Parts: sequence; C-alpha cells; structure tokens
Amino acid sequence: MGEFRRVKIGVVGLGRMGRRHVYNLMYRVPRSQVVAVCTNLPHEIEWAQNNEEYNDFGVAIYEDYDKMLQHPGIEAVWVSTSTDVHAIQSLKGIEKGLHVLCEKPLSTDLDESQRVVDAAAKKPELKVMAAFSRRFDASYRDAAQKILVDRAIGKPFMVRSQTGDLLDTTGFFVRYATRNGSIFVDCAIHDIDLTLWYLDDPVPKACWATGSLQHHPELAESHDVDNAVGVVEYWGGKMAYYLCSRTQAHGHDVSTEITGTEGKIQVNVIPRTNKVVLCNKDGMTHEVEREYWDRFEHAFATEAQEFINSILHDTPVPLPLATGQKVMQIARALQSALWSGEVTRWNEKGEIIYEGKPKWETVMNGHAK
Amino acid sequence: MGEFRRVKIGVVGLGRMGRRHVYNLMYRVPRSQVVAVCTNLPHEIEWAQNNEEYNDFGVAIYEDYDKMLQHPGIEAVWVSTSTDVHAIQSLKGIEKGLHVLCEKPLSTDLDESQRVVDAAAKKPELKVMAAFSRRFDASYRDAAQKILVDRAIGKPFMVRSQTGDLLDTTGFFVRYATRNGSIFVDCAIHDIDLTLWYLDDPVPKACWATGSLQHHPELAESHDVDNAVGVVEYWGGKMAYYLCSRTQAHGHDVSTEITGTEGKIQVNVIPRTNKVVLCNKDGMTHEVEREYWDRFEHAFATEAQEFINSILHDTPVPLPLATGQKVMQIARALQSALWSGEVTRWNEKGEIIYEGKPKWETVMNGHAK
Amino acid sequence: MGEFRRVKIGVVGLGRMGRRHVYNLMYRVPRSQVVAVCTNLPHEIEWAQNNEEYNDFGVAIYEDYDKMLQHPGIEAVWVSTSTDVHAIQSLKGIEKGLHVLCEKPLSTDLDESQRVVDAAAKKPELKVMAAFSRRFDASYRDAAQKILVDRAIGKPFMVRSQTGDLLDTTGFFVRYATRNGSIFVDCAIHDIDLTLWYLDDPVPKACWATGSLQHHPELAESHDVDNAVGVVEYWGGKMAYYLCSRTQAHGHDVSTEITGTEGKIQVNVIPRTNKVVLCNKDGMTHEVEREYWDRFEHAFATEAQEFINSILHDTPVPLPLATGQKVMQIARALQSALWSGEVTRWNEKGEIIYEGKPKWETVMNGHAK
Amino acid sequence: MGEFRRVKIGVVGLGRMGRRHVYNLMYRVPRSQVVAVCTNLPHEIEWAQNNEEYNDFGVAIYEDYDKMLQHPGIEAVWVSTSTDVHAIQSLKGIEKGLHVLCEKPLSTDLDESQRVVDAAAKKPELKVMAAFSRRFDASYRDAAQKILVDRAIGKPFMVRSQTGDLLDTTGFFVRYATRNGSIFVDCAIHDIDLTLWYLDDPVPKACWATGSLQHHPELAESHDVDNAVGVVEYWGGKMAYYLCSRTQAHGHDVSTEITGTEGKIQVNVIPRTNKVVLCNKDGMTHEVEREYWDRFEHAFATEAQEFINSILHDTPVPLPLATGQKVMQIARALQSALWSGEVTRWNEKGEIIYEGKPKWETVMNGHAK
Repeated sequence: MGEFRRVKIGVVGLGRMGRRHVYNLMYRVPRSQVVAVCTNLPHEIEWAQNNEEYNDFGVAIYEDYDKMLQHPGIEAVWVSTSTDVHAIQSLKGIEKGLHVLCEKPLSTDLDESQRVVDAAAKKPELKVMAAFSRRFDASYRDAAQKILVDRAIGKPFMVRSQTGDLLDTTGFFVRYATRNGSIFVDCAIHDIDLTLWYLDDPVPKACWATGSLQHHPELAESHDVDNAVGVVEYWGGKMAYYLCSRTQAHGHDVSTEITGTEGKIQVNVIPRTNKVVLCNKDGMTHEVEREYWDRFEHAFATEAQEFINSILHDTPVPLPLATGQKVMQIARALQSALWSGEVTRWNEKGEIIYEGKPKWETVMNGHAK
Repeated sequence: MGEFRRVKIGVVGLGRMGRRHVYNLMYRVPRSQVVAVCTNLPHEIEWAQNNEEYNDFGVAIYEDYDKMLQHPGIEAVWVSTSTDVHAIQSLKGIEKGLHVLCEKPLSTDLDESQRVVDAAAKKPELKVMAAFSRRFDASYRDAAQKILVDRAIGKPFMVRSQTGDLLDTTGFFVRYATRNGSIFVDCAIHDIDLTLWYLDDPVPKACWATGSLQHHPELAESHDVDNAVGVVEYWGGKMAYYLCSRTQAHGHDVSTEITGTEGKIQVNVIPRTNKVVLCNKDGMTHEVEREYWDRFEHAFATEAQEFINSILHDTPVPLPLATGQKVMQIARALQSALWSGEVTRWNEKGEIIYEGKPKWETVMNGHAK
Repeated sequence: MGEFRRVKIGVVGLGRMGRRHVYNLMYRVPRSQVVAVCTNLPHEIEWAQNNEEYNDFGVAIYEDYDKMLQHPGIEAVWVSTSTDVHAIQSLKGIEKGLHVLCEKPLSTDLDESQRVVDAAAKKPELKVMAAFSRRFDASYRDAAQKILVDRAIGKPFMVRSQTGDLLDTTGFFVRYATRNGSIFVDCAIHDIDLTLWYLDDPVPKACWATGSLQHHPELAESHDVDNAVGVVEYWGGKMAYYLCSRTQAHGHDVSTEITGTEGKIQVNVIPRTNKVVLCNKDGMTHEVEREYWDRFEHAFATEAQEFINSILHDTPVPLPLATGQKVMQIARALQSALWSGEVTRWNEKGEIIYEGKPKWETVMNGHAK
Repeated sequence: MGEFRRVKIGVVGLGRMGRRHVYNLMYRVPRSQVVAVCTNLPHEIEWAQNNEEYNDFGVAIYEDYDKMLQHPGIEAVWVSTSTDVHAIQSLKGIEKGLHVLCEKPLSTDLDESQRVVDAAAKKPELKVMAAFSRRFDASYRDAAQKILVDRAIGKPFMVRSQTGDLLDTTGFFVRYATRNGSIFVDCAIHDIDLTLWYLDDPVPKACWATGSLQHHPELAESHDVDNAVGVVEYWGGKMAYYLCSRTQAHGHDVSTEITGTEGKIQVNVIPRTNKVVLCNKDGMTHEVEREYWDRFEHAFATEAQEFINSILHDTPVPLPLATGQKVMQIARALQSALWSGEVTRWNEKGEIIYEGKPKWETVMNGHAK
C-alpha cells in the first residue's frame, strides 16, 4: 500500500470566495487538506466555529494571519481576502517558505504586485500563482485548443469579451467594490487575460474607454462606473474590445468571441444555467447562471487540482505570475482612459508613452443621474 | 477538533463505469473511502495494480468478490459489474450486512430483482439503492422543481424522452449489449423512471413498440435492435413515448420533454458538450457530449454524496428500490411489444392482462439488412 | 413591350385561410389575378364588400359557388372551405375545366378523395393539386436537399414529427374541429407527408396510437382528442412517430427530425417567431410563432407561385394528387388505431390487412376529465 | 368595381441591389408598377433586354437617366446606383417632381446629402426617403416595440451592434468598396441608426475607433480597413459600440444588443439562415445567411410597401431624411477617429468640437501585412 500524501493548506479570507475555496479543496482535491482557516471578522470566525464540516475535517480557525502561517505542517496558503491585502499576505506566505495561490489580482498597484513577482522569483522552489479561473474552464480550454493548436479559425486577430455581473440589490456589491479596484481592474482583467492567451501575447498600442453609472450612485465617490466599454488596439493589426457590466438583469453573462482570418470561436455567447427550457405563454425561457461560481465552480476545482499537482510533482505553475502583471497594466490603462477621456498609448515595447490625467468632472457629467 | 468519519467502500467491477465510480468517490465524496476494488478480469486486475492513484489511496485489489466482502471495516459495496450479476452481488452484500449501491438495473429478470428488494426490506438498517443517475442531475431536478413544486406547466400529462448513444464502431458496445438486456431494458428505463417521476407515479394501461437494426447486425442473434420507439398509455389520460438509439452520429443525445396543461419543460433538447461554438464556412457548430459520463458526471457525484449521507445520517435512500421494479416492468412490456408486434395491456392495478408472444421472424423481417 | 399574362383565379371560402390565400395571390404572385371570391356566410360577404383592397383590385364577390365558376375568364379555383366540401367543390371546378388548388385534405373519406383523383386524371390538361404547404417551405426543402441529394445523413430510416397548435381559448378551434376530421387526419397528414418524402416513399406495415383529451371536452362528442401520439412501422426497417397537439401553451410548435445511418436533420426543433431574445430577471426568452401562418406564410406564397407557374408553362404540378391519398390512408389508420386501441396492419403492397373496431368507451375512459 | 391605382416607378441602377428592388416591387408591392429601369452599363442593359420577366411586365429600359425621368407617367424613382451618384440622381428626381427612394447613404459627403435634404424640404408634396432597411425588419421592429413601447428593459442606455459581411473572395467587394465610402460609412450607419432609434435620439459626445486590414490589401490604397471597432459615448450616460467586418467566415452576421436598466434585448445574436440543423460527427451545425438579402429580403419588401403607401395616402415617409444626416455625421466621426487615432468630440448641441487629422502612416502600420 503506497503512501498517500496530502498538501496541508491554510486559507485566509472566509468571505464568499474563501468558503468556496475551502469547499473545493475538501470535495474536489483529494490530495489537499485544509488544516487551517483565518479571518479577522468576528462573524466569520463564529460561522467557522459552528460549521460542522470544518469540525469534522479538523480545520483550525485563526484570527491572526501570522499565527496561521505557523500552523504545524502548513505547506501552502490560499489568499482569498479583499484585493487590498492580497500582496502583503502573499509576501508573508512566500517569506515563510509557503506555496501561495492568490486570488486575482495580486494588487491594484503595479509596484506592489511587482514586489510579489520579485519575491517569488527569488524562491523558485515555491509555487506562487495568481488565480485566473477562466484559464481552467473546460470551454475556454477547448477554445484554446481549437484556436492555438487546431488553428480552426486561421490567424486570430480580434477578441470581443465581456464580464457581466447580475445586478446586486443587496448592497453587498457596493461595499465590496470600494476595496477591489475600479471596474476595468476588477472585471476586465479576465477578458484581457483571455486576449493575451488567444492572440498569442500581443503588445498593446492604444486604448480608449467610456462608461456610465446606472444603478449604484454610491460608486461615484470612488469615481467608478457600473458599465464600461473599452477598446484596445494591439501592435500588428490586432484588437480587442471589452464590456464590463455590474448591472445585468438576467444573470452572470460572461462571454468571449475570438475572430480569426478563417473563422470565429464563441464561448458562452448564450449563457445557460443548465439544460432546462420552460415553454409557456411567454415563449421559451432558459435561466442564466446567477454568479461566477455557478459558471466557474468546476474551473476553480481544476485550478486547485492543478496547482496542488504542481506542488506535488514540482512542476511549473499552470500560469506564470508575470502574465498577471501585463494584464493589470492594460486594465489600468483602460481605467485611466476612462478617467481622462483620452487615449492611452504604448510603444512597441509595451511601455506607456502617453496617458491622460483624470478629469473627474467630465467623467461624472456623463453619468446617468 | 471533531472526528471525521468516512464510509469504507468496496467497488466491484472495474470496467468503464466501475473506474468512474472509484474516481468519483475519491474526488467528489470526501466522506467516503474506497478501501477495496474487485474484478475477476486479469487485465483489469493488472490495470488496478499499476494505477498510481489506487496505490496512493491505499486501495486493496481483489479477484474474489466474497473475499472483498470480508475486507476489514468495509461498510458498503458499489456494484458496477454487468447486469447479469447485479442481483447476486447485491444479495451477497446485503447478506453480509453491507450497504449496497447497485448500478441499474438490479436485474433484467423481475423475479430476481424482486429478491433483492425483499432481502433489503428485511434489513431496514441497510441502505440499498439502485442507481438512477438522472434523478441526481441538476437539470432534471430543476425540471422536477418546476413541474412538481412550482406547478409551472399546470397538470403534466405527457412525456417524450429519448436515450441516444453515440454510434460505437469499436465493437465494445456489441460485446457489452449481450449481457445487459435488450434495448428498452438497457436504455429506456431511465426515460420510464423520469415519466414516473414527472407524471406522479402513473399506472400503465397499454404499450406498443417497434424497432430497427441499422448498424449492429450482430444484435440480431439476441433479437435486439439498435433503434426502437415505444409508446405507453397510462391510466387517466397520461402518455409517454420513447426513443432508444444506439447509433447517434453526433453524440450522446439524451433529452426529455414534459408537457402539461399550461406549458412544457424541455431538458437537454439541444445537447451541448460545453459552451463553445465554432463559426466557419460550414456555419455555426457546437459539439455534443460523447457519452453518458460527459453528460452525467456531476449527477454521479451527487448520487454518491447523497447515498453516503443517507448512510452517515441514517436517512432513507434518495430513491426507493420499489421504483426500479415498476420501471423495469414497463421496460420489459415495451420489449415484449417490440418482439410480439402486439399491444401489451395492464389493468388499473398495474397488472399485465395481455402480452403477445415473441414473433422472431416478424421482428427480424422488418430490419434493415 | 411583351404581353403580360395573369392567371384569373376565383377563391372559394373566405375564412381565415381563404383571406390569406387572396392576400398571397395579390401580394406575392404577380402572375395571378384574383377576379372573384365566394362564400355563403353573410358576415364574410359583408367583410369582403367592405374590404378596400378587394374593391381596389376589382374582386367580384359571389354567394353561389356555381355562379363564381362562370365568372368571365376564370381559369382556376382555390378551394379553402372546410374539409367537408373540399371534394365536391374541387370536382365542380374540374368539371368546369378549371385548374384547382385545394386545401389539404381533399376529403376525410378516401373514396371521395379518390373520385377527385380520378376526375383529375381524366383531364390531364388541368392542374389539380392538394396543398401541402410544408413541401414549399425553405427549411423543409433544405432538409430534402441535404437528405435526398447531398446524402448528408446516410440512409434515412426514422422520422419524428410533430404538429403542435397553440391552445385556442376562443372557441374557434372547437367549432372548426368538428368539420375537419379527427386529430390525425387534420394534423398528422403533414407529418406523414414529410415521412413519405424523406424516407423515399416507404410502405406502412403497422401502426398504433393513443391520445388524451386535456382541454376541449367538447371534442369527446366526436370521439376526438386534443393530444395524440402515433407510431408507424414501415416495411424495410423504417419507422416514424408523430405527436399531434391542439394545446401547446407557447405557440405553434411544429418540428421534424429525420435520422439516418450517418446523421440527423432537425427542422424547427426550437421554434422562434423572429430573431429577438429578451433577457430579464426571468432569464432569456424568445417568443414562438402563434400559428401556422406565422410559420408558413412564405411557403404558401411559394406554393401559389409554383402552382401558377405550372399553369402558365403547362408543367406538372409540384406535388401529385396520389401522394395525398397515401398520406390520408396512413392518417386514417392511425386514427383507427387510436379508436380501437389495436394495431392496424398492412401487407407489403400497402393494403390494410387488419384494423380494429372503434371502442368508444375505452377511448373515452383514458381521457382526463 | 373600384379603381386600382399603381404608382409608376423607374429604377436606376441594375446591379445586385437594383435588380432586387425591381423583383420586390414586382412580387411584393401590388400597388407599384415598374415602368422603367436605367443603367449605363452595357452588360446590365443586355441583361435587362434578355430578361423575360421585364419583357412580360412591360418594363422600358433606358441608358440615360434624364430620359428615364421623362418616361410617360413616371411618378417615383428608386435610386440604387453606387453611392457616389446617389445625391445627384436624387436631386434630379426631386427637380422633376418625382418621389424618391434612395439607397443609403444619400452621400458620403455631408454637404452633398444636405443639399438633397434641402431640396426635398422645398417640395413637401414629394416623398423622399433614404432607405434604412433595418427599420422595416420584423425583428428590429419587435425590439423597438419591446424597448420603446412596452418598456421591457427599463431605460435603455447601451447598444452593441455589428455589421459583419461574409468574406468575399470573388473580387466583387473590393471593386464595390472604393465607390461606397470607407468602412464606418458603408457598414456602421445601420448600427448607428439603430442606436438613435433605440436610445431615443441621443447626442454624441466622443468617439474613438481602430481597425485592421486582414484580407483585402487593395483597400489600403483608399485608407480603408476590413475590420473596425468603434465606441461612441453619448451625452447623458449613454454609449454604443460597433463592429464592422468585411471578412466573416460563416456568413452575414449582423446583430444588435440593447441594454437597459432592467434588461437586454438581443436581435439576431445567433444568426440562422433557416430552421434546419444538421447533426453529424462534427456536432450540430446550422448555416448562416450568406448576405444582407437573405437576412433582409422581407424588410425591403415592407420598406417598399410602406413607401408606396405614403405616396398613395400622402402620409409622412416612415423615416425622415434628417435622421440619415445625423447618422452619417457620427459614421464620419468614427472614420475620422480611425484615421487620426484621436478622439472626436462633440458639444451638447451635437456640434463637432474636435477632430484629429488623418495620420495615414500610423493607420497603416497597425495593419496586418
């Protein structure tokens, strides 16, 4: 009988996503073992203490992140807190010699996230990854196979991609939004990441964006909008355009189209929560996933499995940290274009050569009242 | 730290489905532990011995089913052998005081399967279930919610349901078919089960069927066909019609429509393997699941989780054994109608009052050469 | 400047369909000229007299069919009355030496319709056609091209076809139903006709049917049902199954699937009234055609154009009358099976060798109250 | 018997579209009569002379537009020549006192098209319309009903719209393109027109665009691209983004999405040429319309019918000429943004306040070689 090794993991952050990571690690990743969780929010502590499953699985509960990092035998940390503490918590994990899987993005500040990249580079024995769940989704992977391997659409040159969240009327989103960066940084980074993937790592040349505030007036304080459209021109005749929306009425509507010289691939252009259609006097209706978890639950499981495998077999992480940096730079440039109303420009090396200054008045005048 | 209990399981049968059960128990059911597997086929034994995962997880490998039943601590068996030994293996498990999850059907012989039902009834402390995976599928459950709870289609009175398997050109299917009953018994029992579910346990009144042999001439020897259509009239103005096909060109095409007085629910009428569409000079194309596992992997996981939970919490199994008996009776009546060319009839108590005799010559004359 | 000849037409019957035929002839068939219409219903007479368009186009209005047949220069009649007078009106037209396009079916009585076929055969210079609109629909024709010419699905052997009408709550349908034959005769003849087309004129071998009365209790008096399913086995391993429904909640749902040894063609399996989808809190919804005209308006135009062309160029009518006879024989056999609960059987020449006797009590007992 | 009046029409331009207009007027508009056609291309003259239908219908054929305008009894002209002569031919028609339906756009030069608008304004008794076929399409009209009348999506604030033409490999397109304006002017004006319709006549504020040359290097000479994306910000928090593509592999892919505060309407997001799906080893495939005529044939018929009705009943034309001017201004601003790489800006009155100068070198550097 062989030895069955499980990677011991601590999860920091027990909000919606943190709990889901724990669930996934328990139910979908048999080679992992959640040995500890950590949160500094009293109601989350209480929730965890009362959680029968956590008890059964023997999960230790910490209020202090530094203490969790010293949990006996801990090998890896899962960072699923709000974006503003991603980098510092990742750095601490790396410093302690732990593998780190950090929710995207590492930081909304490029310098800060670069420090994580640098720290990881100094400890190549550690697996450090920023989670981009779509890279692990079966449909996006099938698209990649068809585009990059089968060459089913000839030479790809254009991406249309959107991240549309269901309108949240509970107030949860507004509280969350202020800590997670503005709309392009929070939403479009997935779409930009897909663009880099499918268009074979193109270099941005120019971008412009506009947006509107339709439902969440509270966002005006942080100069954010709840719907935004951006276009990025890449060097070499490539281009991409993105919609970010916080206010979809029908569900979580996240789709991507990649156009090449000989065809087009669509991913989830018609979202469907399952295989049921109701036919009644209104016509034929299908429901749409309510949120990213409904859409990407299996992708998160695959992500966790593959990350754990990279630890067990000491192979490269599925997605290099550096990709995330490029993505974030473009997301911030779009945000900057939205705020300035001007075109952001790059040279052929991908260095920004022009960026407008925010004109808050202008931005806000365009918004719905 | 609480105690974390896992139900110890032995799996018998290491064919395609048996391996998948093991996979599911390992990866999707943290409260289960596969402690043993059993097969009498040398190449399956060898495959298991070389399986790194089985080694890592500490799975014992048996050639002899009786010996596996004596594996230390074993609490439950998963029967995934060919149909002809389902009943005897289930009975042995029950006799040993083990919980049993048996692949559908318990038997193609109604008397034999009744013996399993009776044996289980005598040991109510045991959980014994015949697996009907569709009952655990998110889409079929959503349909049930809409039909039976929300009453979204008024009073349901008609079911159209089909089980279409991808044409198998490897010879695997023909070898498998001879041991698993004829077409209605092997395929339509899922569709019949759904009918009983959605039409609120209707009593059959009459049925008729016809079929054709298009691709697998070898099946003629066992009087089987590879495509068959049957209609069942139920008492009280209800009805259902079924297609079973072994020869779908495009994939695993399993769909159901339930019509009520105020609407219709469709489940998987347009099958899709994922969310990708390829647009090229041929038009717009999406792929279809290749086989039942692609379609029902998550349902099998849910089934295993819920069955394990019924053991852990000593609650009723999700689906009573008796349902399977009713289903099988109707499937056999359809098969009998196909073989006789005559209408099978039931009285209002659900007792068969007329059944034609097989006319093998007639059946075979209708088939394609 | 050339001579521009238009075929002068009289239309008998000014109900829903008759008016549409007039519209189509006016708007879609420039080589036709509606010179007269005829109806014996006072409110239809009045409607026509007040119709500005009829006035403008110079359409004469008759109460007496015999008189219309003597309208100066009349060359053809369009018979769109209720089924019970189709044959007699067609015969009178033929007798007068006029071309005749008659709504399907020629008659619900096979002897009567045979008399029309015989009469037409004696005047081969006349164009006489029973209208089967689906033969002129672009989608069904595309299916025929793919199946019969391109051989895109190998050898076709199975048809599933349904005619589902929107539930009518106005009482119109019940009044209409009593004069137009029972459900298989009125609905399934299109589906049977498609079967003969796509399966290359197969000979029926056996059929069975069942049905249910869900919404229109008035139909019980004429032993009709409002939902029925029938299966037809054809000689040579071919088969077809049909649903007829008068009570669809969501719209006019008419679809057909043709399965061959190498693929399947679907026609209108997901009905859509147009290209609009509404996404809102209920999900994604599209509407469905309300009735056959929404679905087949263009087919009727093509039918009229092609029939007129066969007159102008003295070419064969697009669809021979004899096809309609075969179709009707099968439709009646299904109806007979529904009424008797027994299997109707044919020999290899297509002659009926067994047919059960109606058991009205039994039929009605099965119905919903 | 009433008098049946038909409007006598001359059609100028006998290319692809001109012939279709003639066909539509003959087959779909019984109140119209094509009395003359005109073209200065010898092969088109010859084609018309040999056209049996034209002969039968008594259509006179002219080489000289001025002479056609003097055809006895002519009341209206249909201008379907290349864009560069639309305005002059429309002006001549107006001058002669004829009604004019002119293919869009009136001109690629805003001053020139304004002259047509002014000329028409001086003769209010004449019906003068620029054809925007989508306004007459059943699906776009259903969308308008749902958005503007039923308020089914709350307050509309965003439009995504695309005009994608099938890649043309015959050379026809390249010859045509040089005479019909650059990509936004030729393609996006429909999408912009829809935006003005659905967003309730918004005033543009800023726009930016980019593009790429993938298939038709010949277009570089006229500084045109074959794929372009543009974003328009409108005053009041509204926005729209457009894709124009000349190089779709799968067909004519023209779709529009309108998002409001409470929902979204999609028009033709999944294009389908008809109701047929082929299921085979590749999966499930449907074909896509090949060109605009397949998609909009019925819209052109409705357009012609309604324009003729506005003449017959002396009612306003369905779409005012002034709308076309606004549309063209925005299309040209997008084109200008594409050529300059800079943002075009408007004040709140809709007057352009900044427009970059074309940088041909820059534009072309971005293109694929």
